[in-house]
Amino acid sequence: MSKVLVIGHKNPDTDSIASAITYAYLKQQIGVDAEAVRLGNITKETAYALETFGFEAPRLIEKAAPETSQVILVDHNEKQQSVDDLDDVQVLEVIDHHRIANFQTNDPLYYRAEPVGCTATILNKLFKEHGVEIPKNIAGLMLSAIVSDSLLFKSPTFTDQDQAAAEELAAIAEVDAAVYGLDMLKAGADLSSVSVKD
Amino acid sequence: MSKVLVIGHKNPDTDSIASAITYAYLKQQIGVDAEAVRLGNITKETAYALETFGFEAPRLIEKAAPETSQVILVDHNEKQQSVDDLDDVQVLEVIDHHRIANFQTNDPLYYRAEPVGCTATILNKLFKEHGVEIPKNIAGLMLSAIVSDSLLFKSPTFTDQDQAAAEELAAIAEVDAAVYGLDMLKAGADLSSVSVKD
Ligand SMILES: [Mn+2]
Ligand SMILES: [Mn+2]
Ligand SMILES: [Mn+2]
Ligand SMILES: [Mn+2]
Repeated sequence: MSKVLVIGHKNPDTDSIASAITYAYLKQQIGVDAEAVRLGNITKETAYALETFGFEAPRLIEKAAPETSQVILVDHNEKQQSVDDLDDVQVLEVIDHHRIANFQTNDPLYYRAEPVGCTATILNKLFKEHGVEIPKNIAGLMLSAIVSDSLLFKSPTFTDQDQAAAEELAAIAEVDAAVYGLDMLKAGADLSSVSVKD
Repeated sequence: MSKVLVIGHKNPDTDSIASAITYAYLKQQIGVDAEAVRLGNITKETAYALETFGFEAPRLIEKAAPETSQVILVDHNEKQQSVDDLDDVQVLEVIDHHRIANFQTNDPLYYRAEPVGCTATILNKLFKEHGVEIPKNIAGLMLSAIVSDSLLFKSPTFTDQDQAAAEELAAIAEVDAAVYGLDMLKAGADLSSVSVKD
C-alpha cells in the first residue's frame, strides 16, 4: 500500500488540523504509512494549539492524486469541502461528525460518523478500540479540537461524550481544560494584526 | 423518543433479516425502543435460520412514516434499496458493509460502515463496544448471516474479521459452523417446491 493522505476540510479549523495529525499518528501505530495534510491556511487559534503541544502544521496540498491513490477524510465528507481532485482517488475511510451529503464511493470503506460535537471525540474511542495509548502532546491537540468545536464546552452540539473525552484528554495532556481552552480561544480572537482600515 | 424501526434492504437476504433482529435486540438492551421489520418476503434459507434458532420473521412493512419518525438502516444505505418513504423519516443510524451511494441526511447521525463481508461482523464488534453479551440464539442468527454473505466462507469479500467473528459466534451458538452452514445453504437451495413447469 502506498502512502495514505489524511485530509481535513478546506478553510481548516482546529478540529480538521488536529484530527488529521491525530488520526495519521494512530494509523502509523497500526502499520499504515499515513501523512496528515491540510487544504488551507492555519488559523491563529490552531497555530496556538500546534505551538503549545509542539507540532508543525501539516503540509499544504492542492491535489491528492499526483502523490497518492488513497485518502482518508476527517471532519468532513462533502465533496465541495474536500480536496479538488477527490474523484481521482479512493476514499479508504471517513471519520466525521457531520451530516452525510454529496458523498459517494465505488467501493466499501470504513466510515465512522457519530452525532457528537467533534471528530476528536470519535478518535478518542478509536485509540481505545485499537489498544493504542494517546501520547501527551496528541491528547493536548485533541483537547484543543474539542474546545474549538464546542466554544469551550458551550455549543449546543457539545454532548456528554465530548465532555467525557475532554476530561480524559485534559488529564493525559496535564492541562487545565478551562484555563488552556480560554487561552487558545483568546489567541484565535487576537486582533493585534488587524490593520486600522479593517 | 418514539419507537425506532430497524430496517434491512428490499428483497431481504439472511444478513438483512438477521442484522435487523440482532441490532434491534442490542438497541433494546441499551434502552432504545427498537423493532426489527422487513421490506419483503423471507427466503427459504432465511426461514431455515430463523426456525433453527427460534425466531419469528420480523414484521413486514411497506412504509415507515405512518408509524415512526426515526429509522435505523442495516445492510444497506442506498435509497432505492430502502423503504419507499425514506425521505419522510430521520435516519438515526446506518450499520452497513457496502459502498455509500444515493444516501444523504439533513442531520448528523451514527454511520458505521466497515469493508468486511457481512453486517453481522460489525454488529459483533458493537456488542463488545457496548458491553452487552450476545445470547446463544442471536449468535446463531449472526453466524447464519456470515455464512450466507460469504457462501460458507468462500466469497472474495470474506475477510479475516468475518472469519474471527464466525468462530466466536459458532462457539457461543454451540454449533459446528461448517455443518450448520452447509445445511442452511442446502435449505436455501431446496428445489422441492419448484413445479415441473419451472
Ligand atoms: Mn471542522
Ligand atoms: Mn469538527
Ligand atoms: Mn444484504
Ligand atoms: Mn450483507
